[in-house]
Amino acid sequence: MKPLIDPAFVVIEGLEGAGKSTAVARVRAFLEQRGATVVQTREPGGTPLAEKMRELVKTVHQEPLTPQAELLLMYAARVQLVENVIKPALAQGHWVVGDRHDLSSRAYQGGGRQLDSALIDSIRQAVLGDFKPALTLYLDIDPKLGLERAKARGELDRIELEQLAFFERTRARYQALAQGDDSIVTIDAGQPLEQVHQAIDAALGRLERR
Amino acid sequence: MKPLIDPAFVVIEGLEGAGKSTAVARVRAFLEQRGATVVQTREPGGTPLAEKMRELVKTVHQEPLTPQAELLLMYAARVQLVENVIKPALAQGHWVVGDRHDLSSRAYQGGGRQLDSALIDSIRQAVLGDFKPALTLYLDIDPKLGLERAKARGELDRIELEQLAFFERTRARYQALAQGDDSIVTIDAGQPLEQVHQAIDAALGRLERR
Ligand SMILES: Nc1ncnc2c1ncn2[C@@H]1O[C@H](COP(=O)(O)OP(=O)(O)O)[C@@H](O)[C@H]1O
Ligand SMILES: Nc1ncnc2c1ncn2[C@@H]1O[C@H](COP(=O)(O)OP(=O)(O)O)[C@@H](O)[C@H]1O
Ligand SMILES: [Mg+2]
Ligand SMILES: [Mg+2]
Repeated sequence: MKPLIDPAFVVIEGLEGAGKSTAVARVRAFLEQRGATVVQTREPGGTPLAEKMRELVKTVHQEPLTPQAELLLMYAARVQLVENVIKPALAQGHWVVGDRHDLSSRAYQGGGRQLDSALIDSIRQAVLGDFKPALTLYLDIDPKLGLERAKARGELDRIELEQLAFFERTRARYQALAQGDDSIVTIDAGQPLEQVHQAIDAALGRLERR
Repeated sequence: MKPLIDPAFVVIEGLEGAGKSTAVARVRAFLEQRGATVVQTREPGGTPLAEKMRELVKTVHQEPLTPQAELLLMYAARVQLVENVIKPALAQGHWVVGDRHDLSSRAYQGGGRQLDSALIDSIRQAVLGDFKPALTLYLDIDPKLGLERAKARGELDRIELEQLAFFERTRARYQALAQGDDSIVTIDAGQPLEQVHQAIDAALGRLERR
């Protein structure tokens, strides 16, 4: 086994049921086998205050949550997580593996909800600056298949209850953003788990020193 | 008494202890004497979801709330209030009197916390568009005097616990923004209540038909 590069932030992205939680465990195992200590995060959430914001966006309320408020809450939760958990963990020499991060907002709020991407970019720049994952694994899946898997897993939350067209738009935006960014590796998540795992391991080769 | 113009959104602004709550009651009375129905709001808050966001920004937590998350929560709460309460009320022919609104974020987050005002403006434009109060009464007060009044009223919240310099910067920004906007009337809130009330009534003359 080759030694790892310096501790970095690795993110798993994709639609509901793409297999993100399954992939996070695989990435953790890969890093830990190589002697790394791993801090695992999920978004939105991951700090006491960010979890309260997660609750606001995930729960079905009587009062409709506007798409703008949803976007702002996502970034409010994210900046809490980045400043209070992710950056300190990296500074202490830990790896950080994230179940979702910024790409989710750009795909769901920009693609799914069709909010202005210039606005999203300016919020992102203002709250995150240059902070960026070293590697993102985007698990690409047909939303029909993903939602079937997610349904089998349990009850759907407020966002998972969206129409199929919402997830088609989100997927298209994920694909476009992945194509334009070298730090994002697209993995076909419609394959059997064994092949997905092989693709993940191959992508994680980037985290080893040459 | 002259009849009123069409129902509009009137906002009272100013530092802690400036006398906003006292002024809101005066504005309500002025409008109701002229036959208006009045919906009263306060920010952040004023809807079930916005009140939960208010709670997050007002309470002292163990986890530090970043200035960026604070800004985003303020606007998330505001868009909920505007879309779900203020606009519907105006559409139904009610007047709306607000205890704080957008000018607070521009003064506290922009002046007090020194966040980039271009960022604040772009969030504001994106979530509020052209929506704007018809009239804002800015109650200008020396923060020392305001905080004394607020302390006499009860325990201070997370924001009220800031240093005096924070409120000096906030006041300076309030004054600058008021000077550049015809819809904002500045009232010297350091005067005895009787004189403040006279100044408020004079400003409210703008709400009567000519
Ligand atoms: N490649 C795969 N083939 C079949 N089932 C899968 C695959 N990947 C994940 N699953 C199953 O699909 C469900 C959703 O996976 P999960 O990792 O929870 O997705 P996510 O976290 O992206 O919502 C789980 O029951 C999981 O075991
Ligand atoms: N012009 C004034 N002179 C003296 N005391 C005032 C004046 N205006 C308000 N107060 C008192 O100061 C305290 C704070 O006023 P309040 O309306 O609650 O301020 P705010 O809502 O702006 O924090 C209250 O006890 C109020 O009665
Ligand atoms: Mg998951
Ligand atoms: Mg008050």
